[in-house]
Amino acid sequence: MTKKRIAIIGAGPSGLAQLRAFQSAANKGEEIPEIVCFEKQDDWGGLWNYTWRTGLDENGEPVHCSMYRYLWSNGPKEGLEFADYSFEEHFGKQIASYPPRAVLFDYIEGRVKKAGVRKWIRFNSPIRWVDYNEDKGNFTVTVHDHAKDSTYKEDFDHVICASGHFSTPNVPFYPGFDTFNGRVLHAHDFRDAREFKDKDILILGASYSAEDIGSQCWKYGCKSVTSSYRSAPMGFKWPDNWEEKPALESVSGNTATFVDGTQKQVDAIILCTGYKHFFNFLPDDLRLKTANRLAAADLYKGVVYVHNPKMFYLGMQDQWFTFNMFDAQAWWVRDAIMGKIEIPSDKDTLLADVKEREEREEASDDVKYAIKYQGDYVLELIEETDYPTFDVAGACQAFYEWKGHKAQDIMAFRNNSYKSVITGTMAPVHHTPWKDALDDSLESYLQN
Amino acid sequence: MTKKRIAIIGAGPSGLAQLRAFQSAANKGEEIPEIVCFEKQDDWGGLWNYTWRTGLDENGEPVHCSMYRYLWSNGPKEGLEFADYSFEEHFGKQIASYPPRAVLFDYIEGRVKKAGVRKWIRFNSPIRWVDYNEDKGNFTVTVHDHAKDSTYKEDFDHVICASGHFSTPNVPFYPGFDTFNGRVLHAHDFRDAREFKDKDILILGASYSAEDIGSQCWKYGCKSVTSSYRSAPMGFKWPDNWEEKPALESVSGNTATFVDGTQKQVDAIILCTGYKHFFNFLPDDLRLKTANRLAAADLYKGVVYVHNPKMFYLGMQDQWFTFNMFDAQAWWVRDAIMGKIEIPSDKDTLLADVKEREEREEASDDVKYAIKYQGDYVLELIEETDYPTFDVAGACQAFYEWKGHKAQDIMAFRNNSYKSVITGTMAPVHHTPWKDALDDSLESYLQN
Ligand SMILES: Cc1cc2nc3c(=O)[nH]c(=O)nc-3n(C[C@H](O)[C@H](O)[C@H](O)COP(=O)(O)OP(=O)(O)OC[C@H]3O[C@@H](n4cnc5c(N)ncnc54)[C@H](O)[C@@H]3O)c2cc1C
Ligand SMILES: Cc1cc2nc3c(=O)[nH]c(=O)nc-3n(C[C@H](O)[C@H](O)[C@H](O)COP(=O)(O)OP(=O)(O)OC[C@H]3O[C@@H](n4cnc5c(N)ncnc54)[C@H](O)[C@@H]3O)c2cc1C
Ligand SMILES: NC(=O)c1ccc[n+]([C@@H]2O[C@H](COP(=O)([O-])OP(=O)(O)OC[C@H]3O[C@@H](n4cnc5c(N)ncnc54)[C@H](OP(=O)(O)O)[C@@H]3O)[C@@H](O)[C@H]2O)c1
Ligand SMILES: NC(=O)c1ccc[n+]([C@@H]2O[C@H](COP(=O)([O-])OP(=O)(O)OC[C@H]3O[C@@H](n4cnc5c(N)ncnc54)[C@H](OP(=O)(O)O)[C@@H]3O)[C@@H](O)[C@H]2O)c1
Repeated sequence: MTKKRIAIIGAGPSGLAQLRAFQSAANKGEEIPEIVCFEKQDDWGGLWNYTWRTGLDENGEPVHCSMYRYLWSNGPKEGLEFADYSFEEHFGKQIASYPPRAVLFDYIEGRVKKAGVRKWIRFNSPIRWVDYNEDKGNFTVTVHDHAKDSTYKEDFDHVICASGHFSTPNVPFYPGFDTFNGRVLHAHDFRDAREFKDKDILILGASYSAEDIGSQCWKYGCKSVTSSYRSAPMGFKWPDNWEEKPALESVSGNTATFVDGTQKQVDAIILCTGYKHFFNFLPDDLRLKTANRLAAADLYKGVVYVHNPKMFYLGMQDQWFTFNMFDAQAWWVRDAIMGKIEIPSDKDTLLADVKEREEREEASDDVKYAIKYQGDYVLELIEETDYPTFDVAGACQAFYEWKGHKAQDIMAFRNNSYKSVITGTMAPVHHTPWKDALDDSLESYLQN
Repeated sequence: MTKKRIAIIGAGPSGLAQLRAFQSAANKGEEIPEIVCFEKQDDWGGLWNYTWRTGLDENGEPVHCSMYRYLWSNGPKEGLEFADYSFEEHFGKQIASYPPRAVLFDYIEGRVKKAGVRKWIRFNSPIRWVDYNEDKGNFTVTVHDHAKDSTYKEDFDHVICASGHFSTPNVPFYPGFDTFNGRVLHAHDFRDAREFKDKDILILGASYSAEDIGSQCWKYGCKSVTSSYRSAPMGFKWPDNWEEKPALESVSGNTATFVDGTQKQVDAIILCTGYKHFFNFLPDDLRLKTANRLAAADLYKGVVYVHNPKMFYLGMQDQWFTFNMFDAQAWWVRDAIMGKIEIPSDKDTLLADVKEREEREEASDDVKYAIKYQGDYVLELIEETDYPTFDVAGACQAFYEWKGHKAQDIMAFRNNSYKSVITGTMAPVHHTPWKDALDDSLESYLQN
């Protein structure tokens, strides 16, 4: 029998987890399928692969990166550590708990370099289209190879979509945006906070991007931050020059008017209004349509596409857990493809699983409940594979403490440290408080 | 026999010219094929359909618009007037020679409203992929309907690609762009010059975008313009706060260093470095690969794709002539599809035609020669169809005068007026000099 062929779309943390999962099985002497990972960018790392570019990239493709300069992890690294590759193994020592982007990129890269999986990746290769062939029971994938400026098609037995869902911005219109006399941008296009030095900025949204981009701008010297919430204020103890406003009504010239009738003069508007699950390469019968939630729609066990169980999705949930959850998913998908885990053949069973997850998610609005919900999910998958198990409850604990630290002082929470659930070591306190650490380089961060 | 089915990709000026061409034949009692025009945006007008958005649009698609606020025509309208729909017919009077974007949009729209062709257009419908079926001798087109968030396929006998080539930016990297402490943007993402009020801006490039975006920023109060050329300076008599520099070497912090060793502190960098012909929906056997030149590669008569003569391209040339050239092409393509014009069946003949055009273009570097070259091309096509002929030499004359007016005073050339080659009427002088006319609305422009 010829080997199965597996297409993985994307070499971000999720796609890389999938490569590492297969390589780990091969390492143990198992016969693995043929793996081809298609990556649109010229390097791996997904969102963590920073670029100064915005809009369209050097190949004319939409820029994938939504990260920006000076970005530090917004959650403790103790919540995302790989169970098979600790921070201590990578850096030769324990490091502080909220690493900047470059440090986490280095860590992600370290594991896959060690695994030697780069050979499976075709870079500069956006997937243009995928068709499922009913007759042959396989997929035809259409790819653009930018290095050759040439397109081609190849057939695969399975497709694993790991293309991320924080890159296609959700960009609402408010009256006056079209005549605003300054820059209106989405968080996706935000790059260097120093652009907004001495400026009055308006931020729309009340979630992680709003909080963190506002904080960056504050740290790097903007004049004031006005953040506008649609549902509920973030409610942190903000610095004096940060004000929370209710929903935006309209903009006229440079004046923003809010629904409570108050107004503010602003120089720039940053839309931290979230992202869309967007798959411009998938037909209706393969395309996931879901909100950004913990129980993503139509995914059995959070990974198997119920309308075609030969198709898998990784990392499509909203995320408390990240790298370690992608690992749990990738190991599970590997085993499903390799026949070690059986996917029920009855669609109703798949749908019932999705429904159960949805109902359980909706049972409470409590944040701790949500964190534990996702922790339980990670554990559920891990227990069905040989992924090294770890103290998931301990990781949840780090998240609970993190929430408390944010409530205490939003501009200082990154000065705290937590204990690794993989190696048991306590992280050192970083040498410089976050608000004073203007240099976000790896070299600077590792000087502890 | 069933009717032929024709797919037109894009409802910008070129695609609309194609719709009008078919409608005009139908109006004369001819039996025309079934026409479906697919347009990615929610309205027609192509680049002239302004949006404040940059990067990705409300549907997650790359924003097509490269135009910006306060953009006025950069050439005299007398060089682009439709031969079948004069400015006087549309506005009920003759208008001044360099209309702002909104006025030209209104004019473009006027003709196609009158023709009643909107019913042939499917909006919010990006083409995702096109395949040529060797066996059936037709095309399968894959479309995403954003209104229904659904994809579908349809077969067509011909595909006419009119998707434009000034929307996918060519974005070079120079050392230091990744750590520049301000905004680095391509002209494609430039929207409101007032964002750069009181700023020192660096412009890369020495062509139309460089000239016009620098002029906008100057007009709306930037502190200084530094423009950097790679090949040759623009050489206009610039205002005192505008300096031309040779090629950029690198950027460090906010300091730009040029190849002559001089330096300049800048707040923002605007890359006016041109665009790419980019067709992410076409396989190798259908995809045009050409430089931005008057004799586009691989197009017989500038419109028939030599490697598959059932496929046509409109407007893929660099452009002195625009709307009237698109008309000439669209009428010609219509007649080729309707069997009134014969396309040679021998590929060598098609290739020889391309070669002859290339050699003739390359025979001289003179600007007047280039303008006349494209005028001759327009005339050549017109003479083979029933498109109303017009005084092309007169239109060329307007372009020559325009060139002279720019050399005289780059900030005042738009105050001149020219004679219509369609109606013979002289344009009025505009009520306000361009540099003082801060309101670019249609209402303001028509107050002559
Ligand atoms: C601003 C921001 C900050 C964040 N900060 C943190 C943080 O501090 N800590 C944390 O744990 N998580 C953070 N996240 C969450 C982030 O989603 C995950 O850390 C992680 O990057 C998700 O990995 P992924 O592989 O699923 O997706 P991505 O990282 O998005 O990678 C997807 C990959 O698929 C490729 N791709 C997409 N389309 C195609 C195509 N058509 N063809 C081929 N390849 C394609 C992309 O180029 C990309 O490489 C942040 C997210 C954002 C937006
Ligand atoms: C900044 C700027 C200023 C200009 N100013 C002038 C001027 O002053 N005077 C002048 O005469 N010319 C000007 N031009 C030149 C311009 O190219 C033409 O005027 C004209 O817009 C070209 O028409 P088009 O239909 O060929 O392309 P476009 O106007 O680009 O229209 C192409 C259409 O195709 C659609 N499309 C693209 N991809 C897809 C897809 N996959 N599926 C479905 N639809 C798709 C787009 O949404 C768009 O509507 C300017 C160009 C630029 C960039
Ligand atoms: N490492 C870091 O520091 C960092 C920084 C930024 C982001 N991230 C990550 O990036 C991911 C995405 O976070 P996100 O904040 O961009 O998205 P998000 O969590 O989905 O939040 C979107 C926000 O936009 C608001 N919104 C949506 N539509 C709106 C509209 N039309 N008008 C006004 N407000 C609107 C939402 O309000 P409602 O609640 O009313 O819907 C919500 O507050 C998360 O995983 C996050 O952890 C990490
Ligand atoms: N209505 C208006 O006012 C208006 C305004 C703007 C644009 N337009 C239209 O838009 C179209 C496009 O014009 P455009 O100016 O954007 O593009 P363009 O005419 O193709 O010019 C591109 C410019 O970028 C330079 N360049 C390319 N790569 C570079 C690099 N790596 N480093 C430095 N310079 C580089 C080129 O220099 P070289 O010469 O050295 O290659 C050239 O000067 C034209 O049709 C124009 O008429 C109209």
